[in-house]
Amino acid sequence: MRLATATLPDGTTSAIVEIDGRWRRLPYSDLSAALGSLYWRDAPAQAGAIVESPIFGNPLPLPGKVICCGQNYVDHIREMGRTPPKYPTLFTKFADTLCGPDDDIVIHESESSVDWEAELAVVIGSTLSRANESDAAAAIAGYTIANDISLRDWQNRTTEWLQGKAFDRTTPVGPIIVSADAVDPAAGLEISCHVNGELRQRGNTAGLVFSASTLVSYISSFVTLRAGDLVLTGTPSGVGAGMTPPRFLKDGDIVTTTIESIGSLNNRVRIHTASDPVSTQEGRP
Amino acid sequence: MRLATATLPDGTTSAIVEIDGRWRRLPYSDLSAALGSLYWRDAPAQAGAIVESPIFGNPLPLPGKVICCGQNYVDHIREMGRTPPKYPTLFTKFADTLCGPDDDIVIHESESSVDWEAELAVVIGSTLSRANESDAAAAIAGYTIANDISLRDWQNRTTEWLQGKAFDRTTPVGPIIVSADAVDPAAGLEISCHVNGELRQRGNTAGLVFSASTLVSYISSFVTLRAGDLVLTGTPSGVGAGMTPPRFLKDGDIVTTTIESIGSLNNRVRIHTASDPVSTQEGRP
Repeated sequence: MRLATATLPDGTTSAIVEIDGRWRRLPYSDLSAALGSLYWRDAPAQAGAIVESPIFGNPLPLPGKVICCGQNYVDHIREMGRTPPKYPTLFTKFADTLCGPDDDIVIHESESSVDWEAELAVVIGSTLSRANESDAAAAIAGYTIANDISLRDWQNRTTEWLQGKAFDRTTPVGPIIVSADAVDPAAGLEISCHVNGELRQRGNTAGLVFSASTLVSYISSFVTLRAGDLVLTGTPSGVGAGMTPPRFLKDGDIVTTTIESIGSLNNRVRIHTASDPVSTQEGRP
Repeated sequence: MRLATATLPDGTTSAIVEIDGRWRRLPYSDLSAALGSLYWRDAPAQAGAIVESPIFGNPLPLPGKVICCGQNYVDHIREMGRTPPKYPTLFTKFADTLCGPDDDIVIHESESSVDWEAELAVVIGSTLSRANESDAAAAIAGYTIANDISLRDWQNRTTEWLQGKAFDRTTPVGPIIVSADAVDPAAGLEISCHVNGELRQRGNTAGLVFSASTLVSYISSFVTLRAGDLVLTGTPSGVGAGMTPPRFLKDGDIVTTTIESIGSLNNRVRIHTASDPVSTQEGRP
């Protein structure tokens, strides 16, 4: 299954693409609501009216948890000057941190050192606690793409990365969720990040230190995961902070994040200056 | 105002205590729902039927965000071998991490080094983004008590503390929320933690490096805070990990966490052994 949350003139709808390549409505306002129902696995039987020329938004606007793994590709661990870990390094984002696959990423002028991190994101499909790897694998609904945009100066203000990782609406997600029966990251999916068309990161999900199911099992050993939660699996080498000298994103840069068999995120960076006031940031993405 | 979430035979109710010392029902199932309404500041006018002999649960079962500050009392910073910080060290818990003011804290045998951290918790009362300290202060609904129970071995597995701080149902919260017009932590509230009646931590909220309003303002600079969110403000000296040799919690220990003018949490630690299976941990607290 290939699922999405599509933007409509009067709101959003969850949708599924059929073998004829057309997107059809599902009876939920978005995929957070769809996964929260018991019936999302029957989505093909629930397909309704055609959605013409769908515009895809963040497929999961309201995950209860967004848990991220750092240092999960050996080459990225080396470029950050660290050694391969025994345990996954875990931190969080919020639902408010997420934005859509084509949204602008708006940063304030004072918030420098904005870096890219292309990541495979795992979508949880059922409640899971203290699960072994086999049960964890069975609880994975599917996969999507995220870019764990990081403000390195804030990330490195303290030992805890949260504040550099959780700026509102800075982590694009989408454009679609591919169900776990249709794609296998452990078998290897090419993942890349381009900035203004120039390749910055290239990796393969077969190179994950902790696989999707290993990560989900490990996380479930301390916290209950629920349908619609997101687990970001870390980024391959090629981030700006690892370059000599470091390179960061500038106003107008286009970040393209691609995973084989899933699709691409295309996000423009907007750096707001003091003379260019930002509207108050109320409401969810 | 002094507000609570009380357990009833058929669910829960939010409640307010009146000048006669009696608790009366408010028209919300809990204080997460009450704070999510626009009318919680009018709680006294909404008081209904008396709740006889109320049993208090976690006042905020469904916060959208639980953000915690580490290293926020100078004496605790010293005992952990660190230096006073320029920026607050921030990490998160989940709604699933919380439990009630009298609940057992259930840990598995393999999860050792369980430590106590008495903390003042700030309850957010309105939506807040990029707020100055004055606006942040005005957005604080009130204060309650938390114990940031920490599994030090998991906390120190990686640089990021999350996994040692977010075990399901290990952070007691409550018993009541005292509104910000009725109590002022900056003026000084005694805070303490006893284990089996023996004093382990004693501090005063006047000693916070980052005050409640400073913390809330700082956090709002990167993430939108909303009514019902919780901010834990850090713990004073006296944690088990800071002792020589370190002392941790054992099965049957009673942890009592007290803040002047608010009340006390009383939680028993239960260490489950392999021969003492735990039921599957489904559902919210």
